[in-house]
Amino acid sequence: MRQPPRGRFITLEGGEGGGKSTQARLLAAALAGRGLPVLRTREPGGSPGAEAVRGLLLGQAVARWDGVAECMLHFAARREHLAATIRPALEAGLWVVCDRFADSTLAYQCFGQGVPRAAFEALAGVALEGLRPDLTLVLDIAPEQGLQRAEARGDTNRYEALGLAFHHRVHQGFRAIAAAEPDRCALLDATLPMAQVAAAILATVQARLPR
Amino acid sequence: MRQPPRGRFITLEGGEGGGKSTQARLLAAALAGRGLPVLRTREPGGSPGAEAVRGLLLGQAVARWDGVAECMLHFAARREHLAATIRPALEAGLWVVCDRFADSTLAYQCFGQGVPRAAFEALAGVALEGLRPDLTLVLDIAPEQGLQRAEARGDTNRYEALGLAFHHRVHQGFRAIAAAEPDRCALLDATLPMAQVAAAILATVQARLPR
Repeated sequence: MRQPPRGRFITLEGGEGGGKSTQARLLAAALAGRGLPVLRTREPGGSPGAEAVRGLLLGQAVARWDGVAECMLHFAARREHLAATIRPALEAGLWVVCDRFADSTLAYQCFGQGVPRAAFEALAGVALEGLRPDLTLVLDIAPEQGLQRAEARGDTNRYEALGLAFHHRVHQGFRAIAAAEPDRCALLDATLPMAQVAAAILATVQARLPR
Repeated sequence: MRQPPRGRFITLEGGEGGGKSTQARLLAAALAGRGLPVLRTREPGGSPGAEAVRGLLLGQAVARWDGVAECMLHFAARREHLAATIRPALEAGLWVVCDRFADSTLAYQCFGQGVPRAAFEALAGVALEGLRPDLTLVLDIAPEQGLQRAEARGDTNRYEALGLAFHHRVHQGFRAIAAAEPDRCALLDATLPMAQVAAAILATVQARLPR
């Protein structure tokens, strides 16, 4: 699993209600429209094993996981997703567009829930073996507005129910990640109309990842 | 989760068909008979979240996990088991008797399936934070005999179906673990009659863990 990927790996990150799934779909369609081979996927999930773990993480069967255990489940799913889906696609030359990736674990579990950063780094080292996205689009929106949007579309999960203070920590986490890795990340205003966000994303991809 | 445990933590390890579950039950009963407060538990599982992960690992829903992902799932379940069950019991002064623990992951995933030892060590560091059993009883039995026993009791799982060469590697793994940590581990002949194994276990516990 160690050879450099030949395709491109683009992730979309950010808190609830920022339009990640919609923008991932629009970006994949735009890239395909330019004749590029595209795979759109998501986390947690994206392969049969990882989707099974997603069921544990987002379902209601377990009221509350230990924070480190939850972090480990996310990385177990991610490792499976990488092995079964992302690495083969990159090696086949595809442009992979992924709705959430490791930054979400850092923002939600470490910034949001207080899991030590060292645990995140150790797990990332084991699971990713150095792979990182070529470009990460961070869709920035204040939690008040994002949660309102998520609620309006009737799409609530266990994380959305964790309270506003939690989501403020997550929001600050995503901003800190974008600021710490400006070469990889682009912070985009997700409060703009959908078409404007899509245009900003496409312009960023064209500027950062010339074909 | 860092204060030293006040109870005692005893694990039973070894390949299939060595009688771990039976011996865990007998040991727990013997300790309780001596007036000690005992908690008997098992892995993978032992708490609601960990049992949910056990379902993923031992079920047939996912044909084959990536080896590292499988290792991460075992440690996620273990972390949850520690947080929800084992640590609270030890802190309350209980003698915890656990059917399988981290050595099983080392033997099955690293020795058996070829997951790098460094990945195991990194995951153990995150999940266990230095906790290790006070005593590990390794029930030693040749895979040919152990698998025959497991089959005879109609108890087969995904690991039992992995083939004899795999189980020989696991067997050598458990022996290597016992040899590397003689202070923690005792290697016991599991081919003896059940009552003799139970007597050997009790003698070992009394010698190694005086009250």
